[in-house]
Amino acid sequence: MAGRLNFEILPAGSAATARCGLLTTPHGVVETPAFMPVGTLGAVKGVTPQELSAAGASILLANLYHLALRPGIDTIERLGGLHRFVGWTGPLLTDSGGFQVWSLGHLRTVDDDGVTFRSHLDGSSWRFTPETVVEWQERLGVDVAMALDECPPWPVSREQAAAASERTLGWARRARTAWRGETGGGLFGIVQGGVFHDLRERAARDLAALDFDGYAIGGVSVGEPPAERRAVVERTAAALPPERPRYLMGVGYPADILHAATHGIDLFDCVLPARNARHGVLFTREGALKIRNARFRDDPRPVDERCGCPCCSRLSRAFLHHLVRAGELTGPVLATLHNLRYYLDFMTELRQAIALGALADLAARLACAPLPHDPQEQRSP
Amino acid sequence: MAGRLNFEILPAGSAATARCGLLTTPHGVVETPAFMPVGTLGAVKGVTPQELSAAGASILLANLYHLALRPGIDTIERLGGLHRFVGWTGPLLTDSGGFQVWSLGHLRTVDDDGVTFRSHLDGSSWRFTPETVVEWQERLGVDVAMALDECPPWPVSREQAAAASERTLGWARRARTAWRGETGGGLFGIVQGGVFHDLRERAARDLAALDFDGYAIGGVSVGEPPAERRAVVERTAAALPPERPRYLMGVGYPADILHAATHGIDLFDCVLPARNARHGVLFTREGALKIRNARFRDDPRPVDERCGCPCCSRLSRAFLHHLVRAGELTGPVLATLHNLRYYLDFMTELRQAIALGALADLAARLACAPLPHDPQEQRSP
Repeated sequence: MAGRLNFEILPAGSAATARCGLLTTPHGVVETPAFMPVGTLGAVKGVTPQELSAAGASILLANLYHLALRPGIDTIERLGGLHRFVGWTGPLLTDSGGFQVWSLGHLRTVDDDGVTFRSHLDGSSWRFTPETVVEWQERLGVDVAMALDECPPWPVSREQAAAASERTLGWARRARTAWRGETGGGLFGIVQGGVFHDLRERAARDLAALDFDGYAIGGVSVGEPPAERRAVVERTAAALPPERPRYLMGVGYPADILHAATHGIDLFDCVLPARNARHGVLFTREGALKIRNARFRDDPRPVDERCGCPCCSRLSRAFLHHLVRAGELTGPVLATLHNLRYYLDFMTELRQAIALGALADLAARLACAPLPHDPQEQRSP
Repeated sequence: MAGRLNFEILPAGSAATARCGLLTTPHGVVETPAFMPVGTLGAVKGVTPQELSAAGASILLANLYHLALRPGIDTIERLGGLHRFVGWTGPLLTDSGGFQVWSLGHLRTVDDDGVTFRSHLDGSSWRFTPETVVEWQERLGVDVAMALDECPPWPVSREQAAAASERTLGWARRARTAWRGETGGGLFGIVQGGVFHDLRERAARDLAALDFDGYAIGGVSVGEPPAERRAVVERTAAALPPERPRYLMGVGYPADILHAATHGIDLFDCVLPARNARHGVLFTREGALKIRNARFRDDPRPVDERCGCPCCSRLSRAFLHHLVRAGELTGPVLATLHNLRYYLDFMTELRQAIALGALADLAARLACAPLPHDPQEQRSP
């Protein structure tokens, strides 16, 4: 069953570990490194699927935890599967819910067989096991499914991290066995292990032996210092099978993405562009703009001169400032369209830089236009 | 100066008073009867200007009151005028602010020269006169400017209505004198007079003598019974010059629009499609859907089978139900895009029905699929 998702690594540029690739899924090909906009409940907040395509997204992420609780797997299956339900014709990846169970579920009790918790919505009782989570994702018809993991909180002791990693590995084995792969999609295993490199490396090797379609680095962007996260990424990526896609979950700012891609990460997701947009923080090639700031009141320039999004192609910073200040709904909509386009354009530049062996130039450009850096809460619960 | 806005009435169908026309403005031609989406602060809530064009809008309404208070006429003028500021390249009409001054302004004092009030935003003191309101709209560069009016509340006594009508007429005379028309746009006068037909008819005749580019029926949709409003529309429309465009302010549901168009009204605006959308009420050719209703949880059909909006062309009622129930931002965005498209499609059908002399058929179709009818608060303050 593994290998259903073809991953072709393109001829390398001069970078040692960075690579461009083509991930072929039942619903289309993803050029990697790729950024997956986060559609928690099936839609990026404020954005239509058509606008998402127009912004350049090739693959969308949705959250199994949220969809399972509401509207429910049965409902989505009856309606023809997740693609049809959310109106996204391209590749879809669903998170396994591990992270959300740990950050949102109440009265959570975990045993070796799975996890029981109460819904954050209505207090109803739920049970997630490695088998149910795989089965649900197969029923949704996703292109990339994720195995259930235990995502320990930050700070985490070595003992906690080791236990979570061990349990995640046992669950991965069961998920791998449960996965039927009949819809042509693939299953990814998730590496845990906190900030302990030996735990991460061992988990990576053990997961690799299970022959997944791809491998994810989980348990990051939970509050750890950026330097520790970067070290985890470097060490773990190096321990993962080079021929399969690698996904860094919930990270991050463009500089974090560039760093990770330099070390061989292929897939990314993050709520930062959309969440910052809703808070009036706009990402540009010149740095970040807090659009509520009075200095934009009379600024006739687009948010980013080099952006082709619906906001920049027609509107000024002054107008966006006006809408955001007034609390008008169109403000966050335009800001989100812009920030997503910024991220997706950045990924294109990143792929070009890898192909041309010019990552250092891109890194230098980013360093000249720093974005706000808040390593906390980059991941959406 | 009047007549700068060319209005050509097309060869009639069989209807006696309904007409199709072409209103030529500096920023393009409007096919009438036309519906103007309401962009209070320069944008329809949740909608980009590109989406507004795609929905079929030909002319956009914005509110002088709101724009004058925030971000201010000076700011918009410095930024190149209202079209450039809001990113709308087609015709723009601004309301004079009369309605908003009466419904939003605090500590309002009116004298024959104008009105003084405090801003609903920050309590700052403002003075609107017929001359300033005309001057501001000319500085914004709008295609259609409205004269300042006094919009009496409902219920209104004959004495109040007569006084407001008299004052509005005096202000119209001054507005007409102040209007320079140098940007090629036109100025409309507003008929007041409450539900008193003789006051309305006299106001219509007196305004007509001032030779405006068009005439509006104001002071409706303020809470009066629908039957009284319809009688006002019929009598007032008949008293207005047939060769100029007629605009019914703040009305209404499609059935109200059809009625008014039957009696020769050419322009409409209303917040109903967008406001209903934000409350989860979707307009369709089969009637209204309250999308939060449990019966839509598993409904695979589009909101309206015959609609080509971004929502209906790709998504189900079940998905919209899911988003709205979950409070996701994409819910009101999709719903607004749909309801606007519904209104704009309806206007196309209305123009066709007039041209074909088939208004009775269209009225019968509407009657078979009734929309929620709340005659209150159709106008946005």
